[in-house]
Amino acid sequence: TVNGQRLHATLLESYRLSLNDDDKQVRLWFIEETKRYGCKHIVDQMGNIFAIRPGRNNDIPPIGMGSHLDTQPAGGKYDGIVGVNSAIEVLKVLHENNITTYAPIAAINWTNEEGARFPPAMLSSGVWAGAFELGWAHERKDLNGVGLKEELQRIDFLGDAPCDYQKNSLSAHFEVHIEQGPILEQTDLSVGVVTGVQAINWYSIELRGREQHCGTTPMNSRADTLLCAAKMIVKVNEVAHSVPGALASVAVINSTPQAINTLAGRVQFNIDARAPSDERLAFLDEELERELRHVASQEGVKVEKWDKFWNSPRTVFDRIAVDAVRKSAKDSGFAFVEIQSGAGHDSVYTARRCPTAMIFIRCKGGISHNPAEYSTSEDIQAGAQTLLGAVLHYDQL
Amino acid sequence: TVNGQRLHATLLESYRLSLNDDDKQVRLWFIEETKRYGCKHIVDQMGNIFAIRPGRNNDIPPIGMGSHLDTQPAGGKYDGIVGVNSAIEVLKVLHENNITTYAPIAAINWTNEEGARFPPAMLSSGVWAGAFELGWAHERKDLNGVGLKEELQRIDFLGDAPCDYQKNSLSAHFEVHIEQGPILEQTDLSVGVVTGVQAINWYSIELRGREQHCGTTPMNSRADTLLCAAKMIVKVNEVAHSVPGALASVAVINSTPQAINTLAGRVQFNIDARAPSDERLAFLDEELERELRHVASQEGVKVEKWDKFWNSPRTVFDRIAVDAVRKSAKDSGFAFVEIQSGAGHDSVYTARRCPTAMIFIRCKGGISHNPAEYSTSEDIQAGAQTLLGAVLHYDQL
Ligand SMILES: NC(=O)NCCC(=O)O
Ligand SMILES: NC(=O)NCCC(=O)O
Repeated sequence: TVNGQRLHATLLESYRLSLNDDDKQVRLWFIEETKRYGCKHIVDQMGNIFAIRPGRNNDIPPIGMGSHLDTQPAGGKYDGIVGVNSAIEVLKVLHENNITTYAPIAAINWTNEEGARFPPAMLSSGVWAGAFELGWAHERKDLNGVGLKEELQRIDFLGDAPCDYQKNSLSAHFEVHIEQGPILEQTDLSVGVVTGVQAINWYSIELRGREQHCGTTPMNSRADTLLCAAKMIVKVNEVAHSVPGALASVAVINSTPQAINTLAGRVQFNIDARAPSDERLAFLDEELERELRHVASQEGVKVEKWDKFWNSPRTVFDRIAVDAVRKSAKDSGFAFVEIQSGAGHDSVYTARRCPTAMIFIRCKGGISHNPAEYSTSEDIQAGAQTLLGAVLHYDQL
Repeated sequence: TVNGQRLHATLLESYRLSLNDDDKQVRLWFIEETKRYGCKHIVDQMGNIFAIRPGRNNDIPPIGMGSHLDTQPAGGKYDGIVGVNSAIEVLKVLHENNITTYAPIAAINWTNEEGARFPPAMLSSGVWAGAFELGWAHERKDLNGVGLKEELQRIDFLGDAPCDYQKNSLSAHFEVHIEQGPILEQTDLSVGVVTGVQAINWYSIELRGREQHCGTTPMNSRADTLLCAAKMIVKVNEVAHSVPGALASVAVINSTPQAINTLAGRVQFNIDARAPSDERLAFLDEELERELRHVASQEGVKVEKWDKFWNSPRTVFDRIAVDAVRKSAKDSGFAFVEIQSGAGHDSVYTARRCPTAMIFIRCKGGISHNPAEYSTSEDIQAGAQTLLGAVLHYDQL
């Protein structure tokens, strides 16, 4: 069995936007740590790190246990990190008990899962799965215009292994993650057996109105771009409320020229839109576009760009992999519930290319992407224990 | 009489945020240029430049002709620049005609009139007039956190003359400026005799909600700071429409953490609010604060800062100075109209300390703070000619 105390102690205090100096440090730590449990390492062209512990048959691809070590700009310290540390804990247990599995077992750190620095999210598992082109991903830029590939080079993590599910395959992918929602807490259960992930769209919208003097331009002869954006943000919220089960949010906004006495002439903002099914998301998409274009025409502002730059369709996880999780939770005596995830995860992309399943653990108040994110040692232990059992079950299959 | 063609040719193509490298260049040009017409120079602690052409009695303070050479981030090339160049044109005419006035005559370039880089506007004429403390003004920061004093030092324009209306006085202040409004164009008149300036408030508002996951946080359990700000921006607009003659605008917004999948936890924005009288502005102020605090409480977001950091009360210009302008326009045969200015000007602060008046010239479509800003050579000539006459009249008085 896994050691919950020691596992909790491995959680890190610092925050790591993808590929910054702290991300480099945690990657070096990940490699050092997994070396101790007999792992060899592959770093691919997206900086994904595969720490592989050999099995009895090393001709078959490893069973992966993946998640991510990057974080949102300010926390939390569980989102992603719990998954990678649970994978390491499994390696430790195998090592301490001198267990050699049939298949090799890999702990995986996927690059830039959050997408907070380089949108979209799950970028590098997406390249691995063939959902995004490598060249396109390398050219992703952060808010300061710094490119992903140059940052990979700068921190020495531009590997030469192909980032490709065919040339660097996995037999399966299991992922532990905090729930980031309220269900486990409300039902007082310690483990969520994740059956899939809802559908997601990300948009970038660019508006063009007119720079005008705030002190001399009559209220009724303005093309006020920021006012138009504000009305759109309010409308995004209204539309989301009107579509059952849907979520839609605006969290990023850039207004220029940012002078107090000059009306904004250009505004860019992003929308994050989600729904439980692809059909519902398509409906939400249509409503958003129609309503927002209507606001723009009323305000005399031009929609210069309407870019739906990311769509992640609804994901349904593999039955056998999910069964392995369910069986493991049962064997360990954890009461569980089946959950469809609201957040995207690297498992969304691995699910396209190998049997995949996820284990959710309880987190306080369902809070994440916030320094207040918190899970107890017991909850973390339950997740890692379920991961250990699921991997061993799958290995037997 | 002034030469309109040569005057128009002196307008500059580049844009100069206060105290940047281009501002340094134009300041060196201003000094070189005014030297040719017999001027001595005073640079004060705010970088204001007084180019003084001696008169017959140099014991009395100069009659000032001021405006500003800084611009908004992207234009226009008339706002401020026309005023300084008109002043230089007057010096040229005096010089070419070997006229020695009774009082010394000064062309003045006031620092950071726009307030686009270092809010508030009219900062350095404000220090000169005793409306702002020198130390406070020196500590103003731009969006990147760079301080005004360090920028003055960097471009070698931190002078040692006191920035003080008592130690470096003026006998009067006249200013030519584009109207930045539609009245002269609509009435087909070339000169506006400015009788005063409306009242202005600038605010900085800081909101604190909760960083939450956009993909997992139910729509009805959010404290979405950017949504709250958007509702406030819409409300600012509604309130302005409801108060006759009032203007209120939001053009600057900063949202953090700027990650597409994390609801903003902190938002800062500015409000520019104006009204024709102090009473009306006070009413607008109350309405804005009440309505916006109401939005915040409905959204579960905290107003962490409500900072009305600048108030410029309604200004009424000096009767004798305004008469000098009126008489000059009449003498030159320009049809004119009396106007209360919507925009603030350095003359607002000089008006507190010496007789002050302004001359507006027509500008296309009333457009300003925009690269499309435009005035004809004829309009510019009319402004400078009126300035010349007003200064000579005042000098006789
Ligand atoms: N788990 C998680 O927060 N991933 C980021 C991708 C998303 O926005 O859902
Ligand atoms: N003239 C001008 O645009 N001055 C800037 C101060 C203001 O915002 O009114």
